[in-house]
Amino acid sequence: MITSSSSLRRSERSRRATLEAALALCTEKGYGRVTIEAIAARAGVSKKTIYRWWPSKSAVILEAFTEALVDATPFVDTGDIAADLRTHVSGAVNLLATAPFGPAYAGILSEVHHDDELAETVRTQLIEPRFAQAVDRLRRAQEQGQIPPDANLPLAVEMLYGPVYYRHVLRKPVQDEATIAALVAHVLCSLRASATDAGRMREPIVG
Amino acid sequence: MITSSSSLRRSERSRRATLEAALALCTEKGYGRVTIEAIAARAGVSKKTIYRWWPSKSAVILEAFTEALVDATPFVDTGDIAADLRTHVSGAVNLLATAPFGPAYAGILSEVHHDDELAETVRTQLIEPRFAQAVDRLRRAQEQGQIPPDANLPLAVEMLYGPVYYRHVLRKPVQDEATIAALVAHVLCSLRASATDAGRMREPIVG
Repeated sequence: MITSSSSLRRSERSRRATLEAALALCTEKGYGRVTIEAIAARAGVSKKTIYRWWPSKSAVILEAFTEALVDATPFVDTGDIAADLRTHVSGAVNLLATAPFGPAYAGILSEVHHDDELAETVRTQLIEPRFAQAVDRLRRAQEQGQIPPDANLPLAVEMLYGPVYYRHVLRKPVQDEATIAALVAHVLCSLRASATDAGRMREPIVG
Repeated sequence: MITSSSSLRRSERSRRATLEAALALCTEKGYGRVTIEAIAARAGVSKKTIYRWWPSKSAVILEAFTEALVDATPFVDTGDIAADLRTHVSGAVNLLATAPFGPAYAGILSEVHHDDELAETVRTQLIEPRFAQAVDRLRRAQEQGQIPPDANLPLAVEMLYGPVYYRHVLRKPVQDEATIAALVAHVLCSLRASATDAGRMREPIVG
């Protein structure tokens, strides 16, 4: 038992050292010039150890980015869905505006289109769990009567995250707090739309 | 005069041949394996000619993609802003779902983060003109009373385009027609939000 738990501790220490080395190297060299060799040397672990846990450099950096994103974008519940979504989206925007996280995520996304295994890992380990948690947070607000009962919650999440991705991949200036507040207010307001709204919108809505 | 116009025609023929060769090679080999040499050979023009007009392979493919996007995503004005936005967004979604255009644009985006000149070209030749045209189309709808006079039009455009980018860069299944219709309806509905709405949203809006 003692051996097993000290071995687990050693494993966790190596894992953390690997993730920290990967991020430090992203800062110093840029995502494109990071190698598994350099990560191993910096972390003081063997390449074999790294390849036992991760299939590629991108997978190491993805795990480090995911941990940072989870820390930076909590799904708090203060009972005020607008305030909580502003907190959440601001966390994501600020992380993406910070090196090495923003450039590292851009590097990961740039490999998603030609690395099927990485694409699957991004979806299953990062996107889908966060998306589900965002829908859950909206559902709690719905139960509290802050969002209409027939609201399209997955669409709301895409409308919140979409503009953040849009600016990040195009390297446009990131959203400031006022823009994030406007985005959140608009997405919440949009949830008053329903299937029949598509028809109603064809009529002039102002005099 | 005759010489000059026939020289222009020859130039335009070479330009078209270059763009078509670039797209054909993207289809056959994938964006990552296309080279200026291969484009020149396929188009029957010299490398020197290509480099006189474009600084890089990405710039050639960007121009080919931009022409296809402009054709695929007209800003029609039938007097029905919801229908016209559905037409516009569907055009973009369908183009991105089609090879070589979707993978080619993913390839361009993957280089935007480490190629400053390409990033600037993407913004000035593709993103900013299209964004401005989208805002103009919304402004005409506003003048026709289909959108509130105080609506945040640039935010609306980001809410329309953002989810399309989100799915494209993450290789999620593209939006179907029903989802595009819901997105457009929600974005138009969201424009009823105003600065004061951010405050109002804190109160329960359903019983």
